[in-house]
Amino acid sequence: MTDFTRADGRDLDQLRAVRITRNFTSNPAGSVLVEFGETRVMCTASVETGVPRFKRDSGEGWLTAEYAMLPAATHERNRRESMSGKVKGRTHEISRLIGRSLRAAVDLSELGENTINLDCDVLQADGGTRTAAITGAYVALADAIEVLKAQGVVPGNPLLPPVAAVSVGLVDGHVCLDLPYEEDVRAEVDLNVVMTEAGKYVEVQGTGEAGDFGREELNAMLDSAEKGIRELQAAQRAALEA
Amino acid sequence: MTDFTRADGRDLDQLRAVRITRNFTSNPAGSVLVEFGETRVMCTASVETGVPRFKRDSGEGWLTAEYAMLPAATHERNRRESMSGKVKGRTHEISRLIGRSLRAAVDLSELGENTINLDCDVLQADGGTRTAAITGAYVALADAIEVLKAQGVVPGNPLLPPVAAVSVGLVDGHVCLDLPYEEDVRAEVDLNVVMTEAGKYVEVQGTGEAGDFGREELNAMLDSAEKGIRELQAAQRAALEA
Amino acid sequence: MTDFTRADGRDLDQLRAVRITRNFTSNPAGSVLVEFGETRVMCTASVETGVPRFKRDSGEGWLTAEYAMLPAATHERNRRESMSGKVKGRTHEISRLIGRSLRAAVDLSELGENTINLDCDVLQADGGTRTAAITGAYVALADAIEVLKAQGVVPGNPLLPPVAAVSVGLVDGHVCLDLPYEEDVRAEVDLNVVMTEAGKYVEVQGTGEAGDFGREELNAMLDSAEKGIRELQAAQRAALEA
Amino acid sequence: MTDFTRADGRDLDQLRAVRITRNFTSNPAGSVLVEFGETRVMCTASVETGVPRFKRDSGEGWLTAEYAMLPAATHERNRRESMSGKVKGRTHEISRLIGRSLRAAVDLSELGENTINLDCDVLQADGGTRTAAITGAYVALADAIEVLKAQGVVPGNPLLPPVAAVSVGLVDGHVCLDLPYEEDVRAEVDLNVVMTEAGKYVEVQGTGEAGDFGREELNAMLDSAEKGIRELQAAQRAALEA
Amino acid sequence: MTDFTRADGRDLDQLRAVRITRNFTSNPAGSVLVEFGETRVMCTASVETGVPRFKRDSGEGWLTAEYAMLPAATHERNRRESMSGKVKGRTHEISRLIGRSLRAAVDLSELGENTINLDCDVLQADGGTRTAAITGAYVALADAIEVLKAQGVVPGNPLLPPVAAVSVGLVDGHVCLDLPYEEDVRAEVDLNVVMTEAGKYVEVQGTGEAGDFGREELNAMLDSAEKGIRELQAAQRAALEA
Amino acid sequence: MTDFTRADGRDLDQLRAVRITRNFTSNPAGSVLVEFGETRVMCTASVETGVPRFKRDSGEGWLTAEYAMLPAATHERNRRESMSGKVKGRTHEISRLIGRSLRAAVDLSELGENTINLDCDVLQADGGTRTAAITGAYVALADAIEVLKAQGVVPGNPLLPPVAAVSVGLVDGHVCLDLPYEEDVRAEVDLNVVMTEAGKYVEVQGTGEAGDFGREELNAMLDSAEKGIRELQAAQRAALEA
Repeated sequence: MTDFTRADGRDLDQLRAVRITRNFTSNPAGSVLVEFGETRVMCTASVETGVPRFKRDSGEGWLTAEYAMLPAATHERNRRESMSGKVKGRTHEISRLIGRSLRAAVDLSELGENTINLDCDVLQADGGTRTAAITGAYVALADAIEVLKAQGVVPGNPLLPPVAAVSVGLVDGHVCLDLPYEEDVRAEVDLNVVMTEAGKYVEVQGTGEAGDFGREELNAMLDSAEKGIRELQAAQRAALEA
Repeated sequence: MTDFTRADGRDLDQLRAVRITRNFTSNPAGSVLVEFGETRVMCTASVETGVPRFKRDSGEGWLTAEYAMLPAATHERNRRESMSGKVKGRTHEISRLIGRSLRAAVDLSELGENTINLDCDVLQADGGTRTAAITGAYVALADAIEVLKAQGVVPGNPLLPPVAAVSVGLVDGHVCLDLPYEEDVRAEVDLNVVMTEAGKYVEVQGTGEAGDFGREELNAMLDSAEKGIRELQAAQRAALEA
Repeated sequence: MTDFTRADGRDLDQLRAVRITRNFTSNPAGSVLVEFGETRVMCTASVETGVPRFKRDSGEGWLTAEYAMLPAATHERNRRESMSGKVKGRTHEISRLIGRSLRAAVDLSELGENTINLDCDVLQADGGTRTAAITGAYVALADAIEVLKAQGVVPGNPLLPPVAAVSVGLVDGHVCLDLPYEEDVRAEVDLNVVMTEAGKYVEVQGTGEAGDFGREELNAMLDSAEKGIRELQAAQRAALEA
Repeated sequence: MTDFTRADGRDLDQLRAVRITRNFTSNPAGSVLVEFGETRVMCTASVETGVPRFKRDSGEGWLTAEYAMLPAATHERNRRESMSGKVKGRTHEISRLIGRSLRAAVDLSELGENTINLDCDVLQADGGTRTAAITGAYVALADAIEVLKAQGVVPGNPLLPPVAAVSVGLVDGHVCLDLPYEEDVRAEVDLNVVMTEAGKYVEVQGTGEAGDFGREELNAMLDSAEKGIRELQAAQRAALEA
Repeated sequence: MTDFTRADGRDLDQLRAVRITRNFTSNPAGSVLVEFGETRVMCTASVETGVPRFKRDSGEGWLTAEYAMLPAATHERNRRESMSGKVKGRTHEISRLIGRSLRAAVDLSELGENTINLDCDVLQADGGTRTAAITGAYVALADAIEVLKAQGVVPGNPLLPPVAAVSVGLVDGHVCLDLPYEEDVRAEVDLNVVMTEAGKYVEVQGTGEAGDFGREELNAMLDSAEKGIRELQAAQRAALEA
Repeated sequence: MTDFTRADGRDLDQLRAVRITRNFTSNPAGSVLVEFGETRVMCTASVETGVPRFKRDSGEGWLTAEYAMLPAATHERNRRESMSGKVKGRTHEISRLIGRSLRAAVDLSELGENTINLDCDVLQADGGTRTAAITGAYVALADAIEVLKAQGVVPGNPLLPPVAAVSVGLVDGHVCLDLPYEEDVRAEVDLNVVMTEAGKYVEVQGTGEAGDFGREELNAMLDSAEKGIRELQAAQRAALEA
């Protein structure tokens, strides 16, 4: 195993270069471009008065998310879902994951009856788009909440500490952090972890489509993910303080 | 914590009564009714000659799955997806999970260029429908492969050892195995585990929407899940030998 | 014509074995499994407060029905309508027939402003699914109305006497009652009759796609249908008194 | 009952004025405007080389039909189905009825592997649109087959003798032929009959949503329908010989 | 260029025969059949109480339009949009054009909070369907407004002077007015002009898909269009005074 | 009229700052970010082997375009079309305009049987998105054709000289070039012009929804548009030579 090297020269537990650009666009309350290496996702947070029916008269707010891939984000152009008339199962699955993850970063009872819509649009895909989206969406969310507070719309203090996400995989039997597309397609196992700053799990999703995995491998992947998420949370903090 | 009891009187790590009825209907190659307590899912395996485009001329077969809930399966009737014109994200997500899980139970290279369609239709829902579906679908798959082999359609021996699934949750801070609906809605954390007979994970999906969870809690839930899955695999074996 | 025999050995005017199982599932107010030989349909009646817009403020209730075929109900798997995004004309046609038929079994003015949703899901198809659905749905409807009355939701006595349905066909020139799939596909004429206990027609639908039919043949088929429906209404009564 | 009169002064068994205009438009092979009183339907027959998949290599042709209502055909404008994205069950049901009825007017084995598409678009609706459509579509079909024969596309002689259709209803207990909208909405029973020139039934569809009906009433309605259809077939013959 | 002649013998700046038939059908408030040579469009104006959400409480009315092509209107049958489940971009584009054009013919502030729905259904297509639709829809609109005023629904006098439309094209380098299909498909440039009676433009849409065009050609086409529109407005006036 | 000033201080016939960034993303063959002031559109050109059915065996290529607005591009978030299941008429209309315009910039007969897909996704909208899209798409197209030629896929030299587009409007009676959103919504007239480098029109689309316009105003707007387009074509050339 000593002679395994990653195509991009990274250490096994090293993240790709992370860049978080705030105020990427000006119309939404929060707008962030997040980059994990060549993966680039535009994350916006828009605020709407009122909540969906199932939260009405609860005194609480709501947060929801939509993920999508631009047609030319991938190596082979992928068909636009609005034109095919079908939203793919994968798209739904990731949108739901982002929504659940970011609801762990907001205290809905402090939000008033407002809804935050997160949009995560992948401009360029090179693996890890869902984890980049979660990591960037937190920063957009933080900015949007600042706007709401400045406008006096939000009575309380709904923002919770950073939530971030990273992927880990087993590639040729090695635990590799933050997989680019080239590693992702040949990984035996793929694990996505979403974690709070307190080191608690929000989501753990491990899939062994090309091979199952034992308890020890799971543990090694969880360790690697935690290390990566700590660094991502530092990047989130740094971006917000810039 | 000593005075926590479950509404149905079970031990914390006790499964609900499991029943697996083979040949539930006669048209599909494999047809199983699986029951986890009051949860009842009809699992069928239908065989089709040929494979989807992306597997064509690969010499291999394919397996896919669709999950659905009958309108009256739930306490409140849920709207029929064919009539609303929208397949819910949750439905897509579970269908994809079942497909990935059962592909871990079949050697596609031994299947010839045939496709197995699994249909998991929930007749009555009381929590754990996706894990019951995976557990029952394995038995339907086994029966269908027997039919294919008897017909000489399948050259090899594609069936792999049992794959089963169970849910575990944290309810009022206690690790509870195989949650019924009443526990599911108030669980802080929900973990679904899919495992092979060799004790390897196929899928681990933990979600803490109503509260995050630490590494120790994850470990305790994984232990409980493994115990439950062992029993489910015994039930699968028993059903197939009956 | 003396040497015509049916594949299953029945007399020309003999029904297949009829079984009506109440309380088949527990969530809906009424839940029935009806079997006409190998045809099996799950019929449920769910109750909802309020009525559609066109009945609002009428003081009356409403009843509607949806019919569907599970993908593996048929010999060749049929594609799931929610996934194809198209509800077939046949499905619409049968749903509307069931709705009209069962509205003849309920006095809407005694129902209060409540809506009853009937769902008829075919678990196994062997001809006559729409007539089995109507026959079973009556029993589910009766059970649901009992529940409503026990709950004090329904002020009056909306249930009318049994409505049942049967198919008759011309097969090789012979009038055959209650056609299974094998006879149905080669019948020259297919007639579905829905009738009240008072012997009045609710629906008469005769189709001669593979051959037209004369007045005498129509009369012979109507006679056979009436005999069959009498027996089905007896079975409905027996099930409800059990 | 002696003092029952129809709003338009017709006898109980009298048709409304029937007009059949051939060559109503010039692009389709057959194009007919049919009028039953104020009901006006444009019926066209277009020919396409080839047949649907299920008839391929059968040596036979196929015939299919689509019915639709223009938005302003009804008293209250009805929403355009292409814009709502939903084809109504009623539309499907009538399209299927027209297709089955006209397949009784053509010998598919004489048609070669060609498909005839019938389009019946209601320009103005005043009851009986489906029966007018069937009656007019026969004439458009006849014209289209002449064109095909003249072009040498059709080898044989596929046209069969006239098929026509009419509605009958029970209005205030009276059997009334060919109901306009005003009678249709208050009829207790509505019966549509499709018949060949030989006096054989192709379709008999009786519905008693607002009241059931006995065998004698059915017989009286069938008698009235037959009288009306004879007159319609004479009108079809006359139009084709004009 | 002296030897260029049009297939139908018209002068370069001559319209096809224009016919405007009022009261073409009786249910809508306004109903017109407009013919530009072989192009025939049924234009109706239906009135609905209330306005869309974005105009609510404005004290003003609204006008909207839908354009569609019957399946057999074209030489080759075109697929019915309600059945394919997709409204074509071309259909949307023309509907929007008609709506904008006719809003220039009505003073919404004089309409009260009512909505006028224009439906333009092409019965037979031979080029210029959108311009015929606009020209005919004005007359249907005028009739509908008369009805509204007679009913006392409309307080003011919302009808403005005639708006009409015509197409012009460059065919083999010649400016030709009012193109039939045969010229339209081989035109280098296609220009549609919508104009008020005061000679002001409402819409100018020039497209050079098969070749671009210079300023002089544009000017020549605009001159020809204006001449044609003057004649169309005279025809509108004549029809309304008939 | 001497005291009319634009909110952003521009001269009446002055463009906003134009920026064209090539290689904005790396997966598609051509990828450009185009900015007209605060309007930002990502334009990509992807190449696919083969052509649509209607061009098959023509020896020619094809070019098609899709335009879309990201949900957070506008001031108020607009609903994602893939989720609503409806592509708006406006979206279709602009996609078709971009496709037609760019087909004027490519010689399809020199392209071989390849298809170029242009995707124009608006990241930030401040008026003029369609004209920015056309202008940027030309540069993406040029880059994609270079890639194709370098790969030896394209035999000939399909790229034609620059095509660019700009909007002009009448605002408070003044001809203003390149309208931002704030001017666009209050303009009486809106004109979009697409032009080749040779000064020929590809498209001229003038709309006077809030007021019609005379021939002189049209001429003044055409003059202003031409001036703007000349500058945009210089910017396109400069970007391609950089």
